[in-house]
Amino acid sequence: MALRVSNPRPGSLRPASLDIFFTSVSSATVSSMSTVEMEVFSNTQLIIITILMLLGGEVLTSIVGFHLSSFKFSKPETSKESRVSSVCQNPPKHSSFPGLEIEKPATIVDVECNINSLDNYDHSLIKSNSIKCLARVALGYFSVVHITGSSLVAMYTSLVPSARQVLSRKGIKIQTFSVLTTVSTFSNCGFVPTNENMAAFRKNSGLLLILIPQILLGNTLYPSCLRFLIWVLEKITRKVEFRYILMNSREMGYGHLLSFSHSCFLAVTVLGFILVEFIIFCSMEWSSGALDGLNPNQKLIGALFQVVNSRHTGESVVDLSIISPAILVLFVVMMYLPPYTSFMPLKQQVISETGQKCKNRRKSLVQCLLFSPLSILVIFVILICVSEREKLKKDPLNFNVLNITIEVISAYGNVGFSTGYSCKRQLEPDSSCKDAWFGFVGRWSNMGKLILILVMFFGRLKKFSINGGKAWKLS
Amino acid sequence: MALRVSNPRPGSLRPASLDIFFTSVSSATVSSMSTVEMEVFSNTQLIIITILMLLGGEVLTSIVGFHLSSFKFSKPETSKESRVSSVCQNPPKHSSFPGLEIEKPATIVDVECNINSLDNYDHSLIKSNSIKCLARVALGYFSVVHITGSSLVAMYTSLVPSARQVLSRKGIKIQTFSVLTTVSTFSNCGFVPTNENMAAFRKNSGLLLILIPQILLGNTLYPSCLRFLIWVLEKITRKVEFRYILMNSREMGYGHLLSFSHSCFLAVTVLGFILVEFIIFCSMEWSSGALDGLNPNQKLIGALFQVVNSRHTGESVVDLSIISPAILVLFVVMMYLPPYTSFMPLKQQVISETGQKCKNRRKSLVQCLLFSPLSILVIFVILICVSEREKLKKDPLNFNVLNITIEVISAYGNVGFSTGYSCKRQLEPDSSCKDAWFGFVGRWSNMGKLILILVMFFGRLKKFSINGGKAWKLS
Ligand SMILES: [K+]
Ligand SMILES: [K+]
Repeated sequence: MALRVSNPRPGSLRPASLDIFFTSVSSATVSSMSTVEMEVFSNTQLIIITILMLLGGEVLTSIVGFHLSSFKFSKPETSKESRVSSVCQNPPKHSSFPGLEIEKPATIVDVECNINSLDNYDHSLIKSNSIKCLARVALGYFSVVHITGSSLVAMYTSLVPSARQVLSRKGIKIQTFSVLTTVSTFSNCGFVPTNENMAAFRKNSGLLLILIPQILLGNTLYPSCLRFLIWVLEKITRKVEFRYILMNSREMGYGHLLSFSHSCFLAVTVLGFILVEFIIFCSMEWSSGALDGLNPNQKLIGALFQVVNSRHTGESVVDLSIISPAILVLFVVMMYLPPYTSFMPLKQQVISETGQKCKNRRKSLVQCLLFSPLSILVIFVILICVSEREKLKKDPLNFNVLNITIEVISAYGNVGFSTGYSCKRQLEPDSSCKDAWFGFVGRWSNMGKLILILVMFFGRLKKFSINGGKAWKLS
Repeated sequence: MALRVSNPRPGSLRPASLDIFFTSVSSATVSSMSTVEMEVFSNTQLIIITILMLLGGEVLTSIVGFHLSSFKFSKPETSKESRVSSVCQNPPKHSSFPGLEIEKPATIVDVECNINSLDNYDHSLIKSNSIKCLARVALGYFSVVHITGSSLVAMYTSLVPSARQVLSRKGIKIQTFSVLTTVSTFSNCGFVPTNENMAAFRKNSGLLLILIPQILLGNTLYPSCLRFLIWVLEKITRKVEFRYILMNSREMGYGHLLSFSHSCFLAVTVLGFILVEFIIFCSMEWSSGALDGLNPNQKLIGALFQVVNSRHTGESVVDLSIISPAILVLFVVMMYLPPYTSFMPLKQQVISETGQKCKNRRKSLVQCLLFSPLSILVIFVILICVSEREKLKKDPLNFNVLNITIEVISAYGNVGFSTGYSCKRQLEPDSSCKDAWFGFVGRWSNMGKLILILVMFFGRLKKFSINGGKAWKLS
């Protein structure tokens, strides 16, 4: 994962180098926290950001890693294959391999070959084929979603006048916009080349409807959809490889391919969360300022877009700072939940995960308590409160602990929600203050920004630390 | 624990009945959250509050429960004893019982009695004696601390002019004050008959120094001190019962008697927390407004008093609303920690507790996640944000999520810290607003108060739910 340390090249512009570094980290960790306005970046810089997001995205990283490992797997396999086939000719393909339980023809007794080695041979052949197949399917899924997504966005923006006007007014090319938005949405980064993020398109319900599936396909529903896709392919092509993949999803060694029941529970959980959030959001904010100026249809879709984004993507059509605190607290919880949380007795559960880790290494319980994600986040919040203490005192409406917590959890969950900063909320109006369209973190001291960079890395690495714990447990 | 439902009798005064009920619940759950000023209560009512606190206090409740169970235990024991002693005369007392591992005289073979039944008899006799002994020691500890504490407070207040003046100005009797304060401090309730809580005595470092040990003796350090007391008594009297108690602390069936290593770790943890908090508090608040007008000595003792109170008692010498948010977040964490948290591989750890519960009943993981204390508290915070949404919008400096969180966690931990409410902080000054010396919750709607009553009960019952989990685990 050295790619995440790919440092900033865009240095030709005004923003301070720390801000550029911050933006690079933010796109590479798919957080979309921002300290500068997005429209500051030139077209080239936007393309670099797109590449960073592409590389930082969970799905592509996992596919590339899987491709590499499948390559490694197939290499020794072929050499073994050739050696084996020199011993026993005409290997009975498609006959028997564990896990499928087709009628095992007990009559086939090959005298030349040991039946055991045959099974082994067959099994590893089908396994290697399936792994290659899975890698190809995942890559295909990735490409199809991106191409479809980009072209849909491009079509929409070129056909709908209001959206086209927004872009032409800001001088953003339609191609750049559609590719960047699609990559950003699918990788769940959440950067959009407009300053106002998606709020510029809050009335373009069609665009939001195009983006919502991309968000889900690229993150929380990815395992479910991948499995569903393979199932559909199996139904159509009836190839054994697909059946093998479906039956032995764990042996594939691809972390995003979950078992059937887990995929189902995951989908149910994701949709359940969205439903609950959607109901609460609508009931609290229907007639408040956040959704002002929209007709009921647009309100519904805007609210849906907002709650779908709260899990990971962090694109935003409403101003979070005027949303009721009840919903903000709910968003904080949702941002904190890891993407594959599902309500079922499985190891994906972070709470049980932590508990198990704590139980197993009893001696390092201190570590466990001290280094549990929640404690670390609390410590980060305290540190930021310390580093921003002057502003907390002078400017309590902008700098309050809730906003800082949102920023920290948002960075940890790589979401990118931010309440922003508003000069109107200053208690002692400062004439030099200018409203700007970037995250609240943009107003922090350099110390605070550095801490938030740490939090983003920590959040991006959380998957690995959990895996680390799992590996430890299995050994 | 029906006593906690002992409803309010004091109804002769002005405050609304909900407020009176709130105060009763608050004293019976030793929370000391307040919705009315304390000086509103008459002497009689103060005595009733004292009794409620006495009955609600953890130590006395546990001692009474233990007395009852030891009574139950000794009843059948004596009957068995008489029956056994009719069979075998002259039971060799003080010779051998399990757990002490003195040289077991292998030569003593009593022909009349089975050696096994003898051991059993001996064992149960010494056990029943030890239990009675432990109950007596605990009660003695309780009485001595209370009598000493009350007389010290009474002496201090009658001898030191500044403290006496405060009381006489407020028309509070010295006896009532000293008894109520001691009971309140030892039971870790935190009610003080003055409106300003201990802030009225912030310059009386002597009084604070008298109260600090009481806080620790009555709560976090109780198990350590009880064990130390028994150890001292054993050294002095050399009675076997004390040795038996020390050796078989778990068999006593008294939850507050911990093993030697656990007591040590507990004491170290408690003192460590206090030290860390003390250092942070002093470094952040030394020259801020919170400790204004005190000389360095008074500042030191005031800071110490404040941090010792943050774990459970909730008496306060400083105005929490002007303290830096970093420290408030730290206090929230400290309030959330259960009193017997210790850094060692033991079951007292709440995190491992929850994790274990989750692991064991895999099927009810949903319940586990939904009903984990933290999730419930977040839900309560969201509910309160909903019920107070109007005020959150209009009066954001008083009503912010941090203050609500402090109030909720404070109620859950039965601490009683509150940021209060200040008319100065209103954005749109309301001429009818009057500053008052009660908790922030006093400004909430009735709905919010009811929710907070629930939280206090929930917090008081947390010990039982954890025990429930433990019992479940053992079975
Ligand atoms: K994001
Ligand atoms: K208390």
